[in-house]
Amino acid sequence: MPSNDKLFAYNLGLIVPLSEATLHISDLSVQRGYGVFDFVKVQQGFPLFLDDYLDRFFQSAQLMHLSMPLTREEIKQVIDELIARNQLPEAGLKMILTGGYSEDGFTPMNPNLLITQLPLTLPSEEKVAKGIPIMTHDYVREMPEVKTINYSMGIRLLHEQKANGTEEVLYVKNGLVSEFPRCNFFMVTHDNTIVTPANNILRGITRKNVLSLAGRRYKAEVRDIRLEEILQAKECFLTSTTKRILPIVRVDGVLVGTGKPGEVSLQLLQDLMELEDSQIAALRE
Amino acid sequence: MPSNDKLFAYNLGLIVPLSEATLHISDLSVQRGYGVFDFVKVQQGFPLFLDDYLDRFFQSAQLMHLSMPLTREEIKQVIDELIARNQLPEAGLKMILTGGYSEDGFTPMNPNLLITQLPLTLPSEEKVAKGIPIMTHDYVREMPEVKTINYSMGIRLLHEQKANGTEEVLYVKNGLVSEFPRCNFFMVTHDNTIVTPANNILRGITRKNVLSLAGRRYKAEVRDIRLEEILQAKECFLTSTTKRILPIVRVDGVLVGTGKPGEVSLQLLQDLMELEDSQIAALRE
Repeated sequence: MPSNDKLFAYNLGLIVPLSEATLHISDLSVQRGYGVFDFVKVQQGFPLFLDDYLDRFFQSAQLMHLSMPLTREEIKQVIDELIARNQLPEAGLKMILTGGYSEDGFTPMNPNLLITQLPLTLPSEEKVAKGIPIMTHDYVREMPEVKTINYSMGIRLLHEQKANGTEEVLYVKNGLVSEFPRCNFFMVTHDNTIVTPANNILRGITRKNVLSLAGRRYKAEVRDIRLEEILQAKECFLTSTTKRILPIVRVDGVLVGTGKPGEVSLQLLQDLMELEDSQIAALRE
Repeated sequence: MPSNDKLFAYNLGLIVPLSEATLHISDLSVQRGYGVFDFVKVQQGFPLFLDDYLDRFFQSAQLMHLSMPLTREEIKQVIDELIARNQLPEAGLKMILTGGYSEDGFTPMNPNLLITQLPLTLPSEEKVAKGIPIMTHDYVREMPEVKTINYSMGIRLLHEQKANGTEEVLYVKNGLVSEFPRCNFFMVTHDNTIVTPANNILRGITRKNVLSLAGRRYKAEVRDIRLEEILQAKECFLTSTTKRILPIVRVDGVLVGTGKPGEVSLQLLQDLMELEDSQIAALRE
């Protein structure tokens, strides 16, 4: 059990100490890995782009035929209360909706909703300045459009990543790049076009924001990307809620571009942080 | 929470009332659907073919890089104790090994082991006599060789099954039949050859037993099966620990063979029940 002794969580209708937040083992997440979730970043005490994340959370629930026990406004109230009680200005808010306590261990019942808030570790400045090496793996997520809790493949591959010294795994199927277990993929071509895969991906909120920011300075394209292309790219990076933009400098041992984080990636990271700041300023008002 | 008030379960090192068996929500099954399991049938108080199931359970754990907190002998002792305390002569024993309480919500820690015993409902005689209609779905499990807890697709499709009146879903990818979410597939050709898919399947213990029994009376083949073939088959059936052999009489609305359970399927079911009885007799001594 994590040692966040003084934190509170929302668990089955109540705000309780996180240490006491439990589920009966008949829950369909335990029995069958059945559930959806979403993850929001809290910065300076504000949940950023919350409506986008809630939209996606409700959509995932619907796609898995799970009814949400709270309304959107009620979830927002719980989030406000957790932020107020936990006093964690920089944090990750995770909302999980499971298949509920199942009588036969297979059929979903009344879904269980959990909301936790935990301290967040952002990538270090050193990591951003250095970029990361990644590996690829022959795989495509089975329901890429849904944010299910199924990370069997990504977690199983941690072992392999550790062995080969890479920090993330990029899924590639039939020669086409899709996404990372928890991040979206972008490449920058030599004519400064920002490209991200169109298909077989989870539509990341940071991906959406970066695409929008990219369009202000560069050309942005959403299309299929072949693995060979990324080895010819000028720059590559990943996006995620917690990692923002993280440059990729090596793919399966092969250098990307100069092997150092590129100026376009770093410019977009700057733009993204400014967008976050402007959201915080707006929410403060 | 299920209402099996007087049952006991093994949970995190202790035998406890099932109603009190809980996991902290930081468990990696809840957070990321990460875990493996296995399921043994108890008949007349004896766990049937237990060593086969334990072999597979340990192998699944190893393939997911999860270390087992108990030895094989210790698990057997827990099972004996549950059977003695629960007094459920006909039951299902489920062993689940999760990724444990994860500090970062992604990296497996010390795995958590749960063992429950619940009453078992076998298919009714009427259902066996009538056979069942099934649907197919374009899918192949992502790690078919591992008994992970990930049933996202199978459970999501319950909705569709209900709408079209089918009882199981058979996964088919690139024209090749693999398996059901929880059962293996068999067909009987017009020359009484028993055929079951070779690839992209979980190696069922009942599948193994049925193959062995089939070889005594008929020709048995393990090979790829194309969807078109099953529409030409004389008989089709599924096998599983709880369902034994269940005839399939309709696939996506098309009749299989005569549309009634066939004599080969029913003969093999008879043989399987005799094999179970002989195991029970041997265990009783």
